[in-house]
Amino acid sequence: MAEFSPGLEGVVAAETAVSEVDGANGRLIYRGGYLIEDLVPVVSYEEAAYLLWHGELPNEGALDALREQMAGARQLSKPARGALLAMDPVTDPMDILRTVVSAQGASKSLTKPTLEEAVALTAVFPTIVGATLRRRQGKEIVEPRHDLGHAANLLWMMNGEEPAPDNVHWLDTYLVLLADHGLNASTFAARVVASTGSDLASCVVGAIAALKGPAHGGATLAARNMLDKIGSAGNAEKWLTEAHARHERFSGFGHRVYRTYDPRAKILREMARTAAPELHKTAARTEEVALQILHEAHPDRPNATNVDFWASVVLTGAGIPKELFTTIFATSRVSGWTAHVLESLSDLRLIRPASRWIGPQPGKKPLQLTKR
Amino acid sequence: MAEFSPGLEGVVAAETAVSEVDGANGRLIYRGGYLIEDLVPVVSYEEAAYLLWHGELPNEGALDALREQMAGARQLSKPARGALLAMDPVTDPMDILRTVVSAQGASKSLTKPTLEEAVALTAVFPTIVGATLRRRQGKEIVEPRHDLGHAANLLWMMNGEEPAPDNVHWLDTYLVLLADHGLNASTFAARVVASTGSDLASCVVGAIAALKGPAHGGATLAARNMLDKIGSAGNAEKWLTEAHARHERFSGFGHRVYRTYDPRAKILREMARTAAPELHKTAARTEEVALQILHEAHPDRPNATNVDFWASVVLTGAGIPKELFTTIFATSRVSGWTAHVLESLSDLRLIRPASRWIGPQPGKKPLQLTKR
Repeated sequence: MAEFSPGLEGVVAAETAVSEVDGANGRLIYRGGYLIEDLVPVVSYEEAAYLLWHGELPNEGALDALREQMAGARQLSKPARGALLAMDPVTDPMDILRTVVSAQGASKSLTKPTLEEAVALTAVFPTIVGATLRRRQGKEIVEPRHDLGHAANLLWMMNGEEPAPDNVHWLDTYLVLLADHGLNASTFAARVVASTGSDLASCVVGAIAALKGPAHGGATLAARNMLDKIGSAGNAEKWLTEAHARHERFSGFGHRVYRTYDPRAKILREMARTAAPELHKTAARTEEVALQILHEAHPDRPNATNVDFWASVVLTGAGIPKELFTTIFATSRVSGWTAHVLESLSDLRLIRPASRWIGPQPGKKPLQLTKR
Repeated sequence: MAEFSPGLEGVVAAETAVSEVDGANGRLIYRGGYLIEDLVPVVSYEEAAYLLWHGELPNEGALDALREQMAGARQLSKPARGALLAMDPVTDPMDILRTVVSAQGASKSLTKPTLEEAVALTAVFPTIVGATLRRRQGKEIVEPRHDLGHAANLLWMMNGEEPAPDNVHWLDTYLVLLADHGLNASTFAARVVASTGSDLASCVVGAIAALKGPAHGGATLAARNMLDKIGSAGNAEKWLTEAHARHERFSGFGHRVYRTYDPRAKILREMARTAAPELHKTAARTEEVALQILHEAHPDRPNATNVDFWASVVLTGAGIPKELFTTIFATSRVSGWTAHVLESLSDLRLIRPASRWIGPQPGKKPLQLTKR
């Protein structure tokens, strides 16, 4: 019998050409061999998604066609709209997203995942997230606009007003940065679902379910909540020292794969200076003190800042209320989830690991049980 | 770098005391060390679920309390009812289940999975499945009855008439048999979702998503569809020989873990004689010929009949339309899913495997990209 692999750490569960986290060298490679830092300054989210789906960047015609296709897929279906309106507006936005995507992806019969569905599901996330915020605020739902790109549409449907170019830029950068990240837990969940021959909506719903947890997508909100408690740069040392004494974990630090500074965190840290100058000050001091405390406590561990920490600052600067953070993460990652599922179809094999039995063995004689 | 483990076959991803598939000896052990064949004749689904959740069979008082608790949790919440009614009645019943469970489990904020939620989610599945069938048939939804057990309530809500005791018995037996099965793909999906710190409804929704695939829960319907095509015992040899020549897979044969006859299939095969005598004849002849063909083609492979094959016959006998088969599987397995999630909480660790990069390495120089 094989050894138990807790958390499947180090177990290679898939071969992929969608993205690679080179943790030892702090590199994130997107499909085609692009380093994330080379891509980010020049591509929009739509181009990044196209790259993850197709393996190459779109030419002008292909990009126009994709934008057109997404614009045509931003409306909620009747069942999805009905499911959305049935939800209590104060519901956790991730629960609304999970339910409405499930309704949007419902069909009469099981079909094999297609690229067209991947594009359509990706296109509709901003519509759901925007409507979720509007309902939380007791406001009318705002319809998508044909002339706006993905990030701009999301801000438009949240606020019902022309989005500021800076906010669009910051949000779009975040969406490009988070679009894929190797075999993270939600992507793995999507691949497990796909491995049974299930449909694409099921894969995406399973991934949303996994992303929700604070050890994954929920970490961005947790990081921002920590910064809110700290409140100011001047309070960072006191707060962190006390929290450390209470054995609290610092949100936004540590990662399973990176052994050095997360390249996405680096880009977001720089962007945070202009996107949210005040919060950047608090965050920068928090990072400094936290890394110091963590290094002293665990000199052997790489305790680098993770992407969630600086993402929480940039998203704040882009005008995203923190209650939506995890849904915005999902809005980005759905292109990666679907790219992984489509990739896995070429050699589909049921993902069905083994378990080790730690319960009692059956007795030698049949148990004395009587029917009630 | 570790070896790639396709499908994670043989990789131990969890330690569990919920159930054990001893494939080499054809044994299925439920929590507490009970062999499935010892349990089945004497316990109802409610008792089996209690066993999986608690690790021991309930005494009379505990069983009454569980039945009471389940009776109190069979109503759909307002959002779940709204989501249900928003779905097109012809939608794949698994898509309806996935969506309505997601709505039923929605809450204001993230909470840690509890036993109470496990009971409540398990209790509501028959309500959703029953209503799904009624809407498919254009009939009024039937409300649950406080005086009926789990299996009986399911038949009641499907048909709106007093269920025949035999049908209740066959369905209840099926529900006990399928309630858990080691680290199957949907249970593993639930554990992956749980590992991020997500909530119980998310775990269950992820599991439903995975169960849907024909390589997992969808196999029961596939087996029945094959039997429908074969049509009669007399046609089995001709049909199977031709299908084999076309390189078609035989639905209902083969399993990742069992190397000998699945103990559940054995029980269901026997039960099928009385539950569905006509279909049993076709199935028995189909099994005989299929095993012969498979053994000749692959003498090295264990090609034993799997549980789905005989489950499709017994469910038919119990009066379940085949379109509902996968949702009935889910109705059984939800107790196992939730038991696994609750078990995993005691030592929660992010399930995040590694992947092997098969894409190109980044070039030495930054790529020449320009912003459009």
